[in-house]
Amino acid sequence: MSKKPLILVTNDDGITAPGIRTLIEVMTTIGDVVVVAPDSPQSGMGHAITINSTLHVEKVIIDKGLQEEYSCSGTPADCVKLGVKQLLDRRPDLCVSGINHGSNSSINVIYSGTMSAAIEAGVEGIPAIGFSLCDYNWSANFDACKTYIKSIAKNVLDHGLDSGTVLNVNFPNLDKNDIKGIKICRQAKANWEEEFDKRTNPQGRDYYWLTGKFVNLDHGEDTDEWALANGYVSVVPIQFDLTAHQSIQQLNTWRFD
Amino acid sequence: MSKKPLILVTNDDGITAPGIRTLIEVMTTIGDVVVVAPDSPQSGMGHAITINSTLHVEKVIIDKGLQEEYSCSGTPADCVKLGVKQLLDRRPDLCVSGINHGSNSSINVIYSGTMSAAIEAGVEGIPAIGFSLCDYNWSANFDACKTYIKSIAKNVLDHGLDSGTVLNVNFPNLDKNDIKGIKICRQAKANWEEEFDKRTNPQGRDYYWLTGKFVNLDHGEDTDEWALANGYVSVVPIQFDLTAHQSIQQLNTWRFD
Repeated sequence: MSKKPLILVTNDDGITAPGIRTLIEVMTTIGDVVVVAPDSPQSGMGHAITINSTLHVEKVIIDKGLQEEYSCSGTPADCVKLGVKQLLDRRPDLCVSGINHGSNSSINVIYSGTMSAAIEAGVEGIPAIGFSLCDYNWSANFDACKTYIKSIAKNVLDHGLDSGTVLNVNFPNLDKNDIKGIKICRQAKANWEEEFDKRTNPQGRDYYWLTGKFVNLDHGEDTDEWALANGYVSVVPIQFDLTAHQSIQQLNTWRFD
Repeated sequence: MSKKPLILVTNDDGITAPGIRTLIEVMTTIGDVVVVAPDSPQSGMGHAITINSTLHVEKVIIDKGLQEEYSCSGTPADCVKLGVKQLLDRRPDLCVSGINHGSNSSINVIYSGTMSAAIEAGVEGIPAIGFSLCDYNWSANFDACKTYIKSIAKNVLDHGLDSGTVLNVNFPNLDKNDIKGIKICRQAKANWEEEFDKRTNPQGRDYYWLTGKFVNLDHGEDTDEWALANGYVSVVPIQFDLTAHQSIQQLNTWRFD
């Protein structure tokens, strides 16, 4: 039996996306790799799961790598559940998701299918990391990410992660030589200033496209946005206990008549 | 001009669900109400947003209440964005989501469309509350929730909420006289033990249904699960800064060679 770690790989851009192909390539250098990823892009799916329809899974061969691969009709979170509970013959030592085509820094984490897969693995007690590159192009160049991904993944395999946490890793859109290193960060306070582009279809019915501009409201130098803007890879430990513990005392002073 | 608070109401079970009709009824007793809710059930959608397809909105009349109502083709988070950025003529004083048909306590919060709507409002800086009843039936009885909802909503209007937080409120499935009151809680540590029910379709292709059993791993008496199991309404303040601050120091000891 292999002594290599078992690594589950998934993403939200779909199993054929260049980002996941790069991630698979790196992971096969450090472990036995099983890929369970969506058969089509799932961006903006948040932490969706498929409870009212069926899931289809097919074993596929996409390149000549050493990995085993399954294409799944579900969301990124579905892929992790299916991988862990149904397809893998033992518990994975690590789950990695991405590399996402586009940023999942700061508030983007809550909309992110990439991170929902990592969180789902974390809920199952599996050390997990989501990787994203700040470049939305399908033809983005992921080369500069490779050595960082390998180093971060090996650290997680060696040290583990605190219970209830996973890592959100974002790469600046820079050449390898221009990346200054890795910064451990907190999530910046930011939001999207949305605008809805209202149009009328040929049948006279109104419809909207969601558009928006990202606004960083947080100028702390310990944030992921600062790190990315200053040429660093950002690593944010995130948790899925959402309790705002600091608010409990105040709420206990309210009177509910 | 009205001096009543402006309240945005949404949900994830769809605009005609009995749960949101009850919530609207209560909200019209304390403010001016605008409803922007999905035109069909969105359960399990997590924090999904619609970025790659169009959104349709229709003004609708569903009952004889005083509220203004819009039915939307999008997710709960889309409904909040559309309401705040496009449909409302001023900023709402409160956003309420629900009453969900089914629990959103403990780890369920991360899969919850109901809570994603409340979180979306929170990201916009609008005080927000998600309400859920621990009864998945469409014909669930929401009567016992009404006075608690009114009291909690009025407290939030009076006191506001800490920046970056929203409330996750769950009701036990009990008669009014059997509910003991309100407990401010933390999110219990729990997960789902999923099983996939594998079947074969008439064409010979395998498919899966996701099934699962909820497992509470946390026996703390300060948790939402404890409150609900002991006859209390659970109120958990939750935050969308997911940073696991307590892990940062440890991660800073790692060597990234």
